Amino acid sequence: MRIVTADAYLKEEKATTSTEMTEAIDEVVLNIIRKVRADKDKALYDFTEKYDGVKLEELLVTEEEKKNAKKLVDPLFFEALVRAKENIEAFHREQKEKSWFVEKENGIMLGQKITPLEKVGVYIPGGKAAYPSTVLMNVIPAKIAGVPNVVMTTPLQPDGTVNPYVLAAADLVGVDTIYKIGGVQAIAALAYGTETVERVDKIVGPGNAYVARAKKWVYGDVGIDMIAGPSEICVVADDSAPVPYVAADLLSQAEHDESARAICITTSAEKAKEIKAEAEKQAISLERHPIVKQSLQNNGMIIIARNMEEAMEIVNNIAPEHLELMVKNPERWMHSVKNAGAIFLGNFSPEPLGDYFAGPNHTLPTNGTARFASPLGVYDFVKRSSIIRYSEKALLQHAEKIEKLAFAEGLTAHGKAIAIRKDDTDAPGKN
Amino acid sequence: MRIVTADAYLKEEKATTSTEMTEAIDEVVLNIIRKVRADKDKALYDFTEKYDGVKLEELLVTEEEKKNAKKLVDPLFFEALVRAKENIEAFHREQKEKSWFVEKENGIMLGQKITPLEKVGVYIPGGKAAYPSTVLMNVIPAKIAGVPNVVMTTPLQPDGTVNPYVLAAADLVGVDTIYKIGGVQAIAALAYGTETVERVDKIVGPGNAYVARAKKWVYGDVGIDMIAGPSEICVVADDSAPVPYVAADLLSQAEHDESARAICITTSAEKAKEIKAEAEKQAISLERHPIVKQSLQNNGMIIIARNMEEAMEIVNNIAPEHLELMVKNPERWMHSVKNAGAIFLGNFSPEPLGDYFAGPNHTLPTNGTARFASPLGVYDFVKRSSIIRYSEKALLQHAEKIEKLAFAEGLTAHGKAIAIRKDDTDAPGKN
Repeated sequence: MRIVTADAYLKEEKATTSTEMTEAIDEVVLNIIRKVRADKDKALYDFTEKYDGVKLEELLVTEEEKKNAKKLVDPLFFEALVRAKENIEAFHREQKEKSWFVEKENGIMLGQKITPLEKVGVYIPGGKAAYPSTVLMNVIPAKIAGVPNVVMTTPLQPDGTVNPYVLAAADLVGVDTIYKIGGVQAIAALAYGTETVERVDKIVGPGNAYVARAKKWVYGDVGIDMIAGPSEICVVADDSAPVPYVAADLLSQAEHDESARAICITTSAEKAKEIKAEAEKQAISLERHPIVKQSLQNNGMIIIARNMEEAMEIVNNIAPEHLELMVKNPERWMHSVKNAGAIFLGNFSPEPLGDYFAGPNHTLPTNGTARFASPLGVYDFVKRSSIIRYSEKALLQHAEKIEKLAFAEGLTAHGKAIAIRKDDTDAPGKN
Repeated sequence: MRIVTADAYLKEEKATTSTEMTEAIDEVVLNIIRKVRADKDKALYDFTEKYDGVKLEELLVTEEEKKNAKKLVDPLFFEALVRAKENIEAFHREQKEKSWFVEKENGIMLGQKITPLEKVGVYIPGGKAAYPSTVLMNVIPAKIAGVPNVVMTTPLQPDGTVNPYVLAAADLVGVDTIYKIGGVQAIAALAYGTETVERVDKIVGPGNAYVARAKKWVYGDVGIDMIAGPSEICVVADDSAPVPYVAADLLSQAEHDESARAICITTSAEKAKEIKAEAEKQAISLERHPIVKQSLQNNGMIIIARNMEEAMEIVNNIAPEHLELMVKNPERWMHSVKNAGAIFLGNFSPEPLGDYFAGPNHTLPTNGTARFASPLGVYDFVKRSSIIRYSEKALLQHAEKIEKLAFAEGLTAHGKAIAIRKDDTDAPGKN
């Protein structure tokens, strides 16, 4: 972990995606997308054999596989999952929006109609790891939004089965259709459809760099939640912050993968050294020590700020996915945060609490995109339609103004659509 | 205009973006983006000379240019623009969301903090046409959201000046910084910054196929509103619909460009013929007749449905940008609409009313993306941050469950961040 001053940090060139960097990935990604669009199911079987090393007999998870999975799941885990589900549901219910309409003079009515998406596809990464929490975080807001069809797709484990914890989570939140497909081919199938996979309106869920790039490519033909990058944590620690907690929380993100970023901002140079030493000490006993070590070395950083104001300036510059405020009066400093996916207040709100349990979504904007993006939420699973109703009287009252505006843009047929109603005083169907 | 049955329409293969189709565009687009990232301002001057045929002296519109523009604008147009602004503001104020917080047992607090974006870039197309209405529709929701910095960029007219109507509109809604740059180079400058152009958090506004593709490429490094395609209208007309109105409204969209789509769905085969004849008749006298003729020929269609239920099924299948319901009891049928950008009710709510005046945004999802996307709104100019605060008591009460969930995913350092708080009963800074 490097220790740097705030000034030094702010002078560093910040990375944005390099178009060159992604070209090699894109070639692979586009090739798979093209093949899936052309050969449909056949391409899904072929790529699953090629990339997952499994010769599938069918694409769908069977009822029997779901039943068997339940038996393999630790009952205490399942109990915890049920409680997490309740918390996630309670939080997301607060996000639910209602359609609204306003009546104005002369029979004018304007409004905004909220409609849930028809069909959503949830991608759950797999392979070596299992993410039951991701199933909950992606499916629950869709269900609360009222999406009638939520399908899920996840790659097989090396032994050819679907992770039982993922299946148990899917069952708990009511996912009926589950495909055994992963990677770019899964994204392409959800975006364009095959004989077996029906195309969806929006694809959500995390994935590796190839999956992320595939989502960027299909975006526009289908909705996507966001393009996820490596996970990040930024802990702001003043002299009141318990060093072991700060270190443990930094490490909890560093263990995700080698490109995860763990950053601490502290107002105390003394504390900076203590945190570095403590993090390196704690890291040794971690099961995922090699990953943690590598990610701390690549991206671990402790930034020394002159005061809390400067610390908050750096926070907003980083726009972290996860922000912990282990400072005196965190409620006050929360109001200075402009850019962050989720904000954890105080010494007893460690980031994993949000990953698994508290209720807010753990799908959060990464890589500085909290400048413009939000956590996944119920709002991602609805769309809005504007409603406009004018009466004859209302339209004729404003007809000249509308024509003026249309003519200024050279769009005379637009003006004509207004004029024809003005001139035609006894057309049929007038009201 | 083709007349087809509902069955025939539903059997047709629907287009989605072809990856092949876009490759030629992408090569040009990526080349420009790379050059702007490398050479910054110099690239902007070079590309403006190359594509707009103008040797710029500076990138910014001067105060003098703004003053001169005002003198060139028709006062009656300006009056209409002021009234449109009031309507757009009134509608968008209804969209404003508030932060919320909920307090729970044992000192738990959860919430959602709403923060406006810091800096937004609005792209206004130019060249031969002028779009003052687009300035209003893109800037007003950003201002109502509370965005402190809204910059605008627009290409020069062939005579080397910026369209005075666009400048007048920008002045009316309080845009201070205006760049004389268009095309892909403008998008690249807003996304990555140059010596003169500061990078923004989100880029909004329409543009041609190259601008649309550039937005797709920079998406992720910067937020974008949507990837806009050609304009569309879908008019549902039952036997009560006045044929001249239906025809005029179809033509009002057909005049946009040759790839615009005008579609009518009618429950009467008789009416289908009348509408086709009337549209062809009205088209002849339009100023933009060549464009209208071409777009009707390419994409004009009248679909005959058996009944209103079938008509609405087709509407939802098309997911039109603009939907007009010229039918008996449009308020009833509105509730059957699942996919549409804006819905216009009755015989006196023609689409241009929404383009210019009524208040709802005219930036709408095109090309079937109303399946998952919404009109531009205040919600596009804010982001949300989740708030999580647990007390020691609350965390310890649930610690085992959180650890269970973390361990099931193999993320033991996540579990450790919880455990360290459980085991450490007299750490400093506890609350």
